[in-house]
Amino acid sequence: MSDLLIKNTRPMGSDPADILIRNGRIDAIGTDLAAVGIRVEDAGGRIAIPGLVDAHTHLDKSLLGYPWYKNEVGPRLIDKIDNERSVKREYGLDAHIQSMRQSLQSASYGTTLIRSHVDIDTDQGLIALEGVMETRRQLAGIVEIEIVAFPQSGLMRRTGTADLLDQAMAMGADLVGGLDPCGMDRDPKGHLDTIFALSQKHGKGIDIHLHEMAELGAFSMELIFERIRALGLQGKVAVSHAFCLGHSDWKATQAMIDTCADLDIPILTTAPPSREVPSLQRLKAAGVRFGAGVDGFRDTWGPYGNGDMLERTMLLGMKNNLRRDDELADALHVTTTGGALVMDRPDHALVPGGRGDVVLVEGETLGEAIVTHLPRRLVVTAGNVAARDGASLMVRP
Amino acid sequence: MSDLLIKNTRPMGSDPADILIRNGRIDAIGTDLAAVGIRVEDAGGRIAIPGLVDAHTHLDKSLLGYPWYKNEVGPRLIDKIDNERSVKREYGLDAHIQSMRQSLQSASYGTTLIRSHVDIDTDQGLIALEGVMETRRQLAGIVEIEIVAFPQSGLMRRTGTADLLDQAMAMGADLVGGLDPCGMDRDPKGHLDTIFALSQKHGKGIDIHLHEMAELGAFSMELIFERIRALGLQGKVAVSHAFCLGHSDWKATQAMIDTCADLDIPILTTAPPSREVPSLQRLKAAGVRFGAGVDGFRDTWGPYGNGDMLERTMLLGMKNNLRRDDELADALHVTTTGGALVMDRPDHALVPGGRGDVVLVEGETLGEAIVTHLPRRLVVTAGNVAARDGASLMVRP
Repeated sequence: MSDLLIKNTRPMGSDPADILIRNGRIDAIGTDLAAVGIRVEDAGGRIAIPGLVDAHTHLDKSLLGYPWYKNEVGPRLIDKIDNERSVKREYGLDAHIQSMRQSLQSASYGTTLIRSHVDIDTDQGLIALEGVMETRRQLAGIVEIEIVAFPQSGLMRRTGTADLLDQAMAMGADLVGGLDPCGMDRDPKGHLDTIFALSQKHGKGIDIHLHEMAELGAFSMELIFERIRALGLQGKVAVSHAFCLGHSDWKATQAMIDTCADLDIPILTTAPPSREVPSLQRLKAAGVRFGAGVDGFRDTWGPYGNGDMLERTMLLGMKNNLRRDDELADALHVTTTGGALVMDRPDHALVPGGRGDVVLVEGETLGEAIVTHLPRRLVVTAGNVAARDGASLMVRP
Repeated sequence: MSDLLIKNTRPMGSDPADILIRNGRIDAIGTDLAAVGIRVEDAGGRIAIPGLVDAHTHLDKSLLGYPWYKNEVGPRLIDKIDNERSVKREYGLDAHIQSMRQSLQSASYGTTLIRSHVDIDTDQGLIALEGVMETRRQLAGIVEIEIVAFPQSGLMRRTGTADLLDQAMAMGADLVGGLDPCGMDRDPKGHLDTIFALSQKHGKGIDIHLHEMAELGAFSMELIFERIRALGLQGKVAVSHAFCLGHSDWKATQAMIDTCADLDIPILTTAPPSREVPSLQRLKAAGVRFGAGVDGFRDTWGPYGNGDMLERTMLLGMKNNLRRDDELADALHVTTTGGALVMDRPDHALVPGGRGDVVLVEGETLGEAIVTHLPRRLVVTAGNVAARDGASLMVRP
């Protein structure tokens, strides 16, 4: 929690102004701000945006720091899941080191807030959770990390996983995770009843991966809707991916989107070019909370990605065919304030009283900053300088 | 046409080798090659790939070098087309200068061969064609440019356009262009009969933009098939975009893809994340010639893109959900040799006898080079060094 005066910036691409941060919060945004005895950074006219928010990733999975992983994995979801457990054993992958590497790389790109799913399974137990929790402690003040206890290898199909999730929540995970109740776990009732019970027991929210498409995904969504209504968990259950909301049956998807608005179900996307995805414009029109993330990257699942949420903003724009400057600003809202709202952090915004997370980006306009996504000039988290000229100030392990 | 010895490279990511170029062609690839009296470049172990091929772009459209264009354009295709003509007049856009800017930027990213559509319409006549032809002359030996005379504003709907296309072909355009015979031109028979007649008159091929989706696109494809069969134009007619080949009706699209193979119809894609696209894997399996391009970029149509075909290779991989290393190599084939094959240039390959176009890329493997697409170390066109460390050696206007 620090004090900082950022001179000569253009908040969100607007006219020049200064941003004064006191005790980690934005105290004032205006012209010719002055303050004695506090650190000053000259933005040189660069655009200021809020801290980027990676609202869906997997900090424990990346192979950053390892030689290139030659991917020869089979096409099915289960091939990827089984292969990953095997590679983790073979490499002796350390979730703390990997999550430090990824988090600091993300910080260098301007991410100040992350929601990460962390694998909980009967092979490795809770060790990945311990590793990511240690990273969270070490990086407090650089990047905030929210943790979802994630049954990547299945819940009902692998006895003992539910108990591990229970322990994970007791240890301090922030949310209960879930994964394709039908397609992956083959027992949608069992899967959803289990994670909703854990949510109730620990008084924590849920964030469920739902890759199931079209009618199958819609069925799982219905089961989720029913449980939210029955248990009064409005606002507490998020759905990640939600490819079924991007299905071409406009009427059916609109009904689901409207229900997501009614039940306050936040949606998280990673904007994959190869899949149907929930439409940014439609979620915005319906008033659904909407965030985005980089997903796992450079891991056994696939080779793409680098953790850059500004590049992801571009991909989100391309995926939703956003071409106008006002539409690009909508995309950036999703990857900053939108993601923070999904995490119930309404103070993550470039306004007086907001959290002192500011990123200086290169570009004549907000649109240019997004499409070129050049190295970030400065990344400030709660008034502390976390990265400069594209490099984290904390050396990654 | 030059001589050059590239020492210590890894062709396509394989074991170290040298590449000897004589008279603009690859003379030998092997270990410990030596040659007296010719220029030597040390690749420092970097991977060598063939010149990248941008097989679908619009060199006359980009606003490179201008301030950011604030896009407030309406959602329909015709909104974008009408707006563009108006902005061209307002800016006094010079197609020669803009095509120089774009081509040199593309060269800096390793593109050595381009197929560009150039707008022909009753507002500006043939001036854009003259401009791009001048660029082609000036850049010979740096980047090769093939030109499609493109009726962007419509053919049948704007009287006089067909005559202009006729003149364009006589002036030296390489192919006749076309655009959405139904959706845009409202007269599919008239549109296709006109461009096929021009193709026959001038003995040149066709490359038609087909954005029409699903059944409408399939109808236009049928009309194209009929004319190719009737006129014996197998191998002479390419279709760009061909979104209808990505339609979810597997059986109908497979029949179209098989017909594209039978009639030797090359397909060009720009891998847009927001659209259905022809599947790389399915076209490969059917043996359809397949290339890719960056499309127009940083223009009045949209803000995205930079001309980098290695980044486009990544987008092509993401769009087709390619994750395995062998699949990434398939994607790079499309953006190099595949695009050249579409242009009937079978010698564009990293083999003895091939054209001396070599790009040195950064990365431990081919896959890493694609997903990180870092600045190119060296770009060689027909044995001449065209760019180094991400910068064209010819200063752009």
